[in-house]
Amino acid sequence: MNRKELIHQIFSKETFLCVGLDTDMNKIPTHLLASDDPIYDFNRAIIDATAPYAIAYKPNLAFYEMYGAKGLQSFEKTVEYLKTNYPTQFIIADAKRGDIGNTSAMYARTFFDLYDVDAVTIAPYMGEDSVTPFLGRQDKWVILLALTSNRGATDFQTILSNDAQPLYETVIRKSQEWATDENMMYVVGATRGEMFKDIRRIAPSHFLLVPGIGAQGGTLDDVCRYGMNADCGLIVNSSRGIIYASNSHDFAQAAAAKAREIQQEMARALSQR
Amino acid sequence: MNRKELIHQIFSKETFLCVGLDTDMNKIPTHLLASDDPIYDFNRAIIDATAPYAIAYKPNLAFYEMYGAKGLQSFEKTVEYLKTNYPTQFIIADAKRGDIGNTSAMYARTFFDLYDVDAVTIAPYMGEDSVTPFLGRQDKWVILLALTSNRGATDFQTILSNDAQPLYETVIRKSQEWATDENMMYVVGATRGEMFKDIRRIAPSHFLLVPGIGAQGGTLDDVCRYGMNADCGLIVNSSRGIIYASNSHDFAQAAAAKAREIQQEMARALSQR
Repeated sequence: MNRKELIHQIFSKETFLCVGLDTDMNKIPTHLLASDDPIYDFNRAIIDATAPYAIAYKPNLAFYEMYGAKGLQSFEKTVEYLKTNYPTQFIIADAKRGDIGNTSAMYARTFFDLYDVDAVTIAPYMGEDSVTPFLGRQDKWVILLALTSNRGATDFQTILSNDAQPLYETVIRKSQEWATDENMMYVVGATRGEMFKDIRRIAPSHFLLVPGIGAQGGTLDDVCRYGMNADCGLIVNSSRGIIYASNSHDFAQAAAAKAREIQQEMARALSQR
Repeated sequence: MNRKELIHQIFSKETFLCVGLDTDMNKIPTHLLASDDPIYDFNRAIIDATAPYAIAYKPNLAFYEMYGAKGLQSFEKTVEYLKTNYPTQFIIADAKRGDIGNTSAMYARTFFDLYDVDAVTIAPYMGEDSVTPFLGRQDKWVILLALTSNRGATDFQTILSNDAQPLYETVIRKSQEWATDENMMYVVGATRGEMFKDIRRIAPSHFLLVPGIGAQGGTLDDVCRYGMNADCGLIVNSSRGIIYASNSHDFAQAAAAKAREIQQEMARALSQR
């Protein structure tokens, strides 16, 4: 999906919600466990229930790889289900890959050619040749880790360089030499409040993928106040807060209600921007 | 495998060679392609041929994930083959993972509980809680990216902080608050020559996993001169230079010859240390 289509989806559906499919066999309703593929069945129900309120889905690979080849099949079927039934949803493989050039090229083929998702999250530590193999495919995106939502983010990402620039800013500046706002986004955690202002100074037009509202403690208000731009410029993710809203037979309805609640806040934020 | 056993293997076999199983269907001998699982068959032949000269194997996950669930089965079977037939080989999953705490915990369960490898490569960008879930299992190791062998390594890893410390040094220092030389190693590229001296000042006793000899241009001489310590302290990887030494029917013998050549250089380096 290209930038223009993404923006169209956001404004026509009045939402910039991404539903994180961190599907954990230990947390899904027990009545699903008897099926052949509980993870896939859970995901399908969550997708059907939340699709009206979301413009993106983000399966987190860790939760699928944990079950080996079978887990990867659940991932593959989930992506296929989205592409077949909800072709206007933006699909993000949350994989946080990054390796030397020839290896990153393999990962790029996996996610873009084999699974055909729209975007992959990438870790910047290994620099340019670890990122560029993911670029250059039409309508495919790199979502580069910049300032993450977790506690450990301040171990390295906020270290000041000898020209007084925090590492995450260096990552954002440097990576703009490799890619544009048409094929790169940045991960910025919702827990970072006012730091969005600094990021918008150096990346005014890029989309930001924002994890960390809900379970991790960030607020949508702050994210919108400091991070929204004229094109919205935000994809805000919620995983646990939506998909585990209930762990009983009503899990899909509960997820829909939670997604709708967030969508309504988002509609207000879009109308007030 | 614990540190003591690893050192014992190195000195008794007079080698610190790791064979990188970057098995690419487009590069293996064409006569293997008719089999049910060409990647596994290739790996078995390479392992049988090179095991006398190596103390470690490092399958690179990118090359397996590229074939989806089937590729992951080839990886799983390769690990199983090593564990059954060569239980004294140290197995490194080259996966370069790293995510927020609850997700890293999932990856740790995948690699250590499901596949039961000895070590996983981890990217440090997300900090402490992205790394610590991989620690705490007996005889299991984190191999943290510090200074990698690729061109892009100088984009971020060598940036000087405002106290004049390059980022890779900060990573090595900080991570020593989380782990010891009994459960953490560092990736340092063979292409980094004299920088090994600086690294040995701050991590004198840690094992270093060294990619980048051969195809990437580093020399074993430099690595040993600047990086070896009293316990050897080095695991030097070669992938393409060994496994693709020939792409004909003699591929396994050619790989063995190449591995033996490196082993002999290593034996000399160990005796001269």
